[in-house]
Amino acid sequence: MTAAEELRPRPVPGAAELRLLALPGIPLVGAGDDLAAMIADAVERGGERLRDGDVLVVAQKVVSKAEGRVARLADVRPSERAHAVARATGKDARIVELVLAESDDVVRAAHDVLVVAHRLGFVMANAGIDQSNVGPGDGDAVLLLPRDPDASCARLRSALRTRAGVDVGVIVNDSHGRAWRNGTVGVAIGAAGVPALVDLRGRADLFQRHLRATEVGLADEIASAASIVMGQADEGRPVVLVRGVPYERRDGCARELVRPRERDLFR
Amino acid sequence: MTAAEELRPRPVPGAAELRLLALPGIPLVGAGDDLAAMIADAVERGGERLRDGDVLVVAQKVVSKAEGRVARLADVRPSERAHAVARATGKDARIVELVLAESDDVVRAAHDVLVVAHRLGFVMANAGIDQSNVGPGDGDAVLLLPRDPDASCARLRSALRTRAGVDVGVIVNDSHGRAWRNGTVGVAIGAAGVPALVDLRGRADLFQRHLRATEVGLADEIASAASIVMGQADEGRPVVLVRGVPYERRDGCARELVRPRERDLFR
Repeated sequence: MTAAEELRPRPVPGAAELRLLALPGIPLVGAGDDLAAMIADAVERGGERLRDGDVLVVAQKVVSKAEGRVARLADVRPSERAHAVARATGKDARIVELVLAESDDVVRAAHDVLVVAHRLGFVMANAGIDQSNVGPGDGDAVLLLPRDPDASCARLRSALRTRAGVDVGVIVNDSHGRAWRNGTVGVAIGAAGVPALVDLRGRADLFQRHLRATEVGLADEIASAASIVMGQADEGRPVVLVRGVPYERRDGCARELVRPRERDLFR
Repeated sequence: MTAAEELRPRPVPGAAELRLLALPGIPLVGAGDDLAAMIADAVERGGERLRDGDVLVVAQKVVSKAEGRVARLADVRPSERAHAVARATGKDARIVELVLAESDDVVRAAHDVLVVAHRLGFVMANAGIDQSNVGPGDGDAVLLLPRDPDASCARLRSALRTRAGVDVGVIVNDSHGRAWRNGTVGVAIGAAGVPALVDLRGRADLFQRHLRATEVGLADEIASAASIVMGQADEGRPVVLVRGVPYERRDGCARELVRPRERDLFR
């Protein structure tokens, strides 16, 4: 298979049902916790068994917590630049300092808006830094994104293979705003064992015409689907088992979804 | 309930499984076809019965076909402006003419790129005009978006209520590119009977902190989820039954998802 062909997983014919199950009873996650063990236990509690080809979508927050990606605002000394951006946005200068440290570039700064190019490549608000749901009594703590979410996914996938003997895909999802649409949607910031981008270019349509420019952000679509059952606030359902994704598997990663700056008309 | 409260549907506690079933055997759709009847038949063929609260996601193409939203390139006389944009983009001037006629504004024009603000408000490539899957022998035909996709959804919802006695939500989905990410994802261009935007602002998180700026594009997430099982090319699975969306219903519409131009930093 050529490299181009490898980017073109075929939908599996006939497969047309997708199930998403938020795993019950995932406990509060802390630094150093074994997420793979928690997930395997929760799958069992849900009366399920993992199968080859299942995809597990894990909320960014619990991955960040397990990896200890917490910063304390009391420890942050904002730079001059952070103070200037804080004035322009009306945000806390200590949070701005952390956002800038996590980012390669400020894309837009306006009142209550700080959109950056995260060092991972994602254009997103506030570099994904989050004060909600960090932990009880952690008023001063904020969560950063995992250092390398694709690697986090690959580790989880490998740990689940060892533990359960199955080859699953793993996606870490987060909620991102969009340029032209209201509301956030789930997107993939990490992926392993599942194609993040599916290249359908050159496939014939129903009437044998040539399809053009059809690359599908499959991992983002799965991330959005999982987000529906995760809920956003106090639900505490951070892991979703997805069964029936009708595409052949390959070693994808979320970096496939990042549009290179030189091909981006909207920065 | 105040208007603001009505925008805040609560997730239903405990509900944590979502099922998406692509309905089997939807025939080729032509102008004037009764989509509600086709859908009801396909639900039955799939061994299912519609229930209150189910959401049906219908691909834009079949809605456009049923509504006869076909244009013939031979009938199009491109304007001077269309010729100029065609030169800048390398696109067919007749298609550009149709794109401009469907749009309020050109957002970006570059080689092989024509992003516009559709008259419906959506910022999207080529005003959603599509040459693939129009019909056999229709080499000269292109499909336009439905004239009012929110109204299309409301009509389908009403027809299914009459026919099956159930109150379902309906979403018309399309595939859109994104500003900063590779690949298209399913988005809602029409909706009825389901909240398109869910306002979680002010809800407490797991640790009773205040959540800020959390509006979720729920209808877009459902549209993306359905897109996974629809496939993009020759699968012919244009209607997806979604069961288990864990949010209270209200009369939403996809226009909620359009960011007003004056609040859009990326045009």
